[in-house]
Amino acid sequence: MSKVNVWLYDNLLTPDPNDFYGKVKPQGTLRNNDIADAMVKEGTEYQKETILNILDRSDRIKVSKLVEGYSINTGVCYSHIGINGAFHGATDRFDPNEHRITASFTSSTALREELKKTQVEIIGAATTEPVIGKVIDNLTKAEDSTITPGNVIVIKGNRIKIAGDDSGVGVYLVDQGTNTRCKCEQIVTNEPKQLMVMLPDLPAGNYILEIVTQYSSNNSTLKEPRTTPFEHVLIVE
Amino acid sequence: MSKVNVWLYDNLLTPDPNDFYGKVKPQGTLRNNDIADAMVKEGTEYQKETILNILDRSDRIKVSKLVEGYSINTGVCYSHIGINGAFHGATDRFDPNEHRITASFTSSTALREELKKTQVEIIGAATTEPVIGKVIDNLTKAEDSTITPGNVIVIKGNRIKIAGDDSGVGVYLVDQGTNTRCKCEQIVTNEPKQLMVMLPDLPAGNYILEIVTQYSSNNSTLKEPRTTPFEHVLIVE
Repeated sequence: MSKVNVWLYDNLLTPDPNDFYGKVKPQGTLRNNDIADAMVKEGTEYQKETILNILDRSDRIKVSKLVEGYSINTGVCYSHIGINGAFHGATDRFDPNEHRITASFTSSTALREELKKTQVEIIGAATTEPVIGKVIDNLTKAEDSTITPGNVIVIKGNRIKIAGDDSGVGVYLVDQGTNTRCKCEQIVTNEPKQLMVMLPDLPAGNYILEIVTQYSSNNSTLKEPRTTPFEHVLIVE
Repeated sequence: MSKVNVWLYDNLLTPDPNDFYGKVKPQGTLRNNDIADAMVKEGTEYQKETILNILDRSDRIKVSKLVEGYSINTGVCYSHIGINGAFHGATDRFDPNEHRITASFTSSTALREELKKTQVEIIGAATTEPVIGKVIDNLTKAEDSTITPGNVIVIKGNRIKIAGDDSGVGVYLVDQGTNTRCKCEQIVTNEPKQLMVMLPDLPAGNYILEIVTQYSSNNSTLKEPRTTPFEHVLIVE
């Protein structure tokens, strides 16, 4: 039986001080390499290289089949592609500026069954930790979705001011494909509830925003910086 | 370079007769078995059984890691779990009636890159085919999401009346885990734009709704029944 720990956070969007929302405490990120390691650890006749090669190749095949219009149903999720945007008349053409092909995903039955069985432990209100509530692309006004390299993002939250003399403090974007951490050198506004940050020239990809700070709300500085990741993936297109 | 065909459908939600939306023409559903076949067909040193075994095991490991709070990043999608529902006060407990652990998914960078490169061909307005627009659970009023066994669902659309003397005509739910097709024996309302159907006693799972009919809007009956799947997965919890 699996168990997750959940932190509670004051919901900043309601005036009720007793209104909290939960976040599952993150355990880290696993990639095909880690899945292959886990399979070897469980015990298997296959070499790790074999497992990893097959997982990587199957991912490539799944992507190539999805973009041909196939649905892919695995033990983790069901996925298919669709098209967004309105067409004006039955003879309208595809226009990349108006229409977009996107993939959508639904949890598999197996995953949903396991989620139902998962034990939840509320480990209390995370009142002293920084909380990132929302990330807004100041150019497009997109919230918690796309970001634009070379433009400003607005980060709203609590206790997110970047402070301290540790060389690691700052705002980072971590490429989820390569795990590369890119530091944002220019912080335009630096307040406990709001940061405005100039993004560097990031390649297209999926990113996790992290803030690293020694800021503490009781006017002291923490001895060690702490790292707070934002839970939503930010996308550079 | 991949290419998808897109049908256009009259948008029933707007009065504008020139307002259309697109649907990618479905190519079928692929499971791990089909992915393994595709890999063998490409050419590989591995046996199909090896590939299938590794894909099934990796799915099980991914599910078990997700429900422990890990994020999983593959070449297809990025996934993690979260918790829905409000907590009333910092000492509130987890209540399965109010709170729910769910998984969310984002397309990987590789998938998004391929979607961008995909050629789209508009193959015209699909005006003669049945169109399923919306499926409503009459008990919970949930739209295009959960359905309740032993209760009525409302299907809205165009040309969806069940007609014809072929033994195959009717409303079906296809279990996406097992591919089992379950026929709904009791059709309460049967009109061109609306069906009300009593659901049989379905096990928990993800289902695709299909209507099979010889109905035609010009008062004739089609010689052969045609099968129309609904694009959204319907969930029995």
